[in-house]
Amino acid sequence: MTTIDLNADLGEGFGRYRLESDAELLALVSSANVACGFHAGDPLVMRETVSRAVARRVVIGAHPSYPDLLGFGRRDLAASPEEIEAYVVYQVGALAAFCGAHGTKLSYVKPHGALYNRAARDGGAARAIARAIRSVDPTLILLGLDGTSMLTEAAAEGIDVAREAFVDRAYQPDGHLVPRTQPGAVLDDIPSIVERAVRMVTERFVIAIDGTRRIVRPDSLCVHGDGSHAVAIVRALRERFDTLGIDVAPFAR
Amino acid sequence: MTTIDLNADLGEGFGRYRLESDAELLALVSSANVACGFHAGDPLVMRETVSRAVARRVVIGAHPSYPDLLGFGRRDLAASPEEIEAYVVYQVGALAAFCGAHGTKLSYVKPHGALYNRAARDGGAARAIARAIRSVDPTLILLGLDGTSMLTEAAAEGIDVAREAFVDRAYQPDGHLVPRTQPGAVLDDIPSIVERAVRMVTERFVIAIDGTRRIVRPDSLCVHGDGSHAVAIVRALRERFDTLGIDVAPFAR
Amino acid sequence: MTTIDLNADLGEGFGRYRLESDAELLALVSSANVACGFHAGDPLVMRETVSRAVARRVVIGAHPSYPDLLGFGRRDLAASPEEIEAYVVYQVGALAAFCGAHGTKLSYVKPHGALYNRAARDGGAARAIARAIRSVDPTLILLGLDGTSMLTEAAAEGIDVAREAFVDRAYQPDGHLVPRTQPGAVLDDIPSIVERAVRMVTERFVIAIDGTRRIVRPDSLCVHGDGSHAVAIVRALRERFDTLGIDVAPFAR
Amino acid sequence: MTTIDLNADLGEGFGRYRLESDAELLALVSSANVACGFHAGDPLVMRETVSRAVARRVVIGAHPSYPDLLGFGRRDLAASPEEIEAYVVYQVGALAAFCGAHGTKLSYVKPHGALYNRAARDGGAARAIARAIRSVDPTLILLGLDGTSMLTEAAAEGIDVAREAFVDRAYQPDGHLVPRTQPGAVLDDIPSIVERAVRMVTERFVIAIDGTRRIVRPDSLCVHGDGSHAVAIVRALRERFDTLGIDVAPFAR
Repeated sequence: MTTIDLNADLGEGFGRYRLESDAELLALVSSANVACGFHAGDPLVMRETVSRAVARRVVIGAHPSYPDLLGFGRRDLAASPEEIEAYVVYQVGALAAFCGAHGTKLSYVKPHGALYNRAARDGGAARAIARAIRSVDPTLILLGLDGTSMLTEAAAEGIDVAREAFVDRAYQPDGHLVPRTQPGAVLDDIPSIVERAVRMVTERFVIAIDGTRRIVRPDSLCVHGDGSHAVAIVRALRERFDTLGIDVAPFAR
Repeated sequence: MTTIDLNADLGEGFGRYRLESDAELLALVSSANVACGFHAGDPLVMRETVSRAVARRVVIGAHPSYPDLLGFGRRDLAASPEEIEAYVVYQVGALAAFCGAHGTKLSYVKPHGALYNRAARDGGAARAIARAIRSVDPTLILLGLDGTSMLTEAAAEGIDVAREAFVDRAYQPDGHLVPRTQPGAVLDDIPSIVERAVRMVTERFVIAIDGTRRIVRPDSLCVHGDGSHAVAIVRALRERFDTLGIDVAPFAR
Repeated sequence: MTTIDLNADLGEGFGRYRLESDAELLALVSSANVACGFHAGDPLVMRETVSRAVARRVVIGAHPSYPDLLGFGRRDLAASPEEIEAYVVYQVGALAAFCGAHGTKLSYVKPHGALYNRAARDGGAARAIARAIRSVDPTLILLGLDGTSMLTEAAAEGIDVAREAFVDRAYQPDGHLVPRTQPGAVLDDIPSIVERAVRMVTERFVIAIDGTRRIVRPDSLCVHGDGSHAVAIVRALRERFDTLGIDVAPFAR
Repeated sequence: MTTIDLNADLGEGFGRYRLESDAELLALVSSANVACGFHAGDPLVMRETVSRAVARRVVIGAHPSYPDLLGFGRRDLAASPEEIEAYVVYQVGALAAFCGAHGTKLSYVKPHGALYNRAARDGGAARAIARAIRSVDPTLILLGLDGTSMLTEAAAEGIDVAREAFVDRAYQPDGHLVPRTQPGAVLDDIPSIVERAVRMVTERFVIAIDGTRRIVRPDSLCVHGDGSHAVAIVRALRERFDTLGIDVAPFAR
């Protein structure tokens, strides 16, 4: 039987602010990438998010970022590998403490936004993230972009990796995501998103923005928690997966 | 043989800033209260401080604060117990990760500045801190002001506590510190500081600001890491303790 | 003819976050209290808010706060009068620059949240705010709570003041607001809010939470921009004011 | 008679932290680039710095930065031109308010660190800064790197510009500074720094890192306020300038 994980970014509120779809998404995904305070997610939000994820039996991953609340972690920052490593240790440790406090264990790490994109292209950044993970807890899995050096670098550092694909983002022919600043970067037609997701899981390819076909082998599909259509997309995905007998289950145990 | 711990606040730099006495103090104290990013201490500073403390075999404690870099955590903030609890979990978790990454274990928690003073008077805050500690790691010890509800509340929550006294701060007759905003709050005459410290350890009392005698039973003596005289004070203390056969050793193991 | 100003807190987004009712409220109020970056409101949000207010011919006031994004400026902070004065100069200057850049002039200052409440009770804080206003631009008006020392202190410092009343907040018998942490602090029944507002304007009193009557003489009525009912309340207010021939117009020109 | 301005970065403390050479540098330079809170400089520090500069009759410029206290504004950040423009308006406005409060006027703007370096190469960033300056106060002068598009772009936007050269930084053959991350980027031999400065002013050239000669026409020479030798360098410079009959005076009036 085919199994796939669904992951979404959750707990991306801060102080008085909340992004709205958290509660609904938690009922639909199998893995939650929880913000750790650097691009979103303050201690109260983290506690609340971990607590809800535990109640829903959703597996928890850390979603560390550059320190850039103002830019929601989506702007590249020329931080050194040494700085990146320390930032990841800090954020993963903070979230792990909330997991422990709620009787669960942090399972994986997925870098956020501009840090994720950098790690997909910059070996030094990817290795810094892997070293941080290994030093905090070598059993943590790195969830990263399928087919990029982010995963090979992490594996070379001795970290287990899981591959993800993005159902609502356009791909470049080399397997990288089309940057959000470019037109067509974010997809919003639900039927075609669902179709794309099914192909990723069952036929193991995605059509890049130039029309070429690219092989993907996802352990997990990402749906953006902050997108306006996120809940609708995941609902549609799950319905279709049900029909096709594809089981939704966490990649990490 | 009489044994006493010496603790100091360390790692209180941030970004480009460093407080100067860290390296020297680490050679002199037995326990380091390491800032966790909320009043001072960024991830790089935390890493550097933990690494040095490990090299010096100095026991590491977390020094969590209100989120107030601008005020160095020294201004009271009307945070709720729920907020305080989450802030402490976050900071302790972050520092514990750096300890793990350097092959050591976090041993204790000592709240910083205005949060410390609040916990010494406000049972709700003291219990929030104790709950945070217990939920992250119930073997962590709370280091707090001797003779205050901060310690009794923590003990009632099931947390081990250690008592500290301040060698360079004036005391109120009820055992609380004289606030820094008042004249005479911080002592700077080294011979009388040393005399005071010896009395605390060997005769178990301190003379309060009104001349009354107050019993203290310190497990640890605190010297302020950011004071201009800190290094000179600790040097003088250690010399005198040596002469008197008082052993300096960590209260936590 | 009776005239009253309506003011609301606007521009209280930050980074990726927005509070939703801004655009609608701008069409309904005559004065906008614009966040200045310390409790909400980043430079882009400030620019956007000033630009929209100018387009709507809404008068602009600065809404300075304690530096507490995490607590949305709603938690008291033991900042010194000297610190408060510097914080207000900084925030007012920053917003004034956006006003100038959009061809308008900043008209007034209304402190936010916990700083507002402190200024209503603490003469030292009220004078610090008044000194800050005077030093930046002595023609700026302080908008503050009717009947409190906040206004008398400012007037004594030579600052023009305007009095405001809160249509959706319960009053204590001494004219102060019931703190948000207490039950009944925020009113939500629109018909009774409207009734209350009409009485404030035409009969010049409000019924305090203990049933006693308190005189008010508002130049402006405040509706909370971040309340879920804010838009509905202002709509209902304006409708009723229209019927009664009460003109809505800015207190500042 | 030859005249030259000397400028230094001042007011780069934050909260409890201070960089040490401020008071001495203020006695030696003719223009002060004052930090505005984004990479350093909180409201109290800004007030203190402006007050001292006024007392010393030192001309005041704003020193706006990317929002990166953690990195001291020295790391490039992929902020959009729109964001940069808003950041500069905000910071310039805040500092201008402190100038007004101390009876003086802000005279110029010099971007800090990574923002400065970006503006020297990226026309979009340079124009954003110029637009910000023009919108706040079109009489403000942009102080920027001699021979770069930073100045031509600003001039094209209608802003007056002043050219600066760096006495203690190595140059690339194209007139840009050698990045701090590269060896040899910062010079520290005082006699050769002085020689270099004299040549810049009297012979109008600098020897780049590859040995080639590059023309410079500085209105101002920059000495880094945070360098350990800063005070010694400026002292030596002034002494030599005195001997040569070169007058030190602000470029802005």
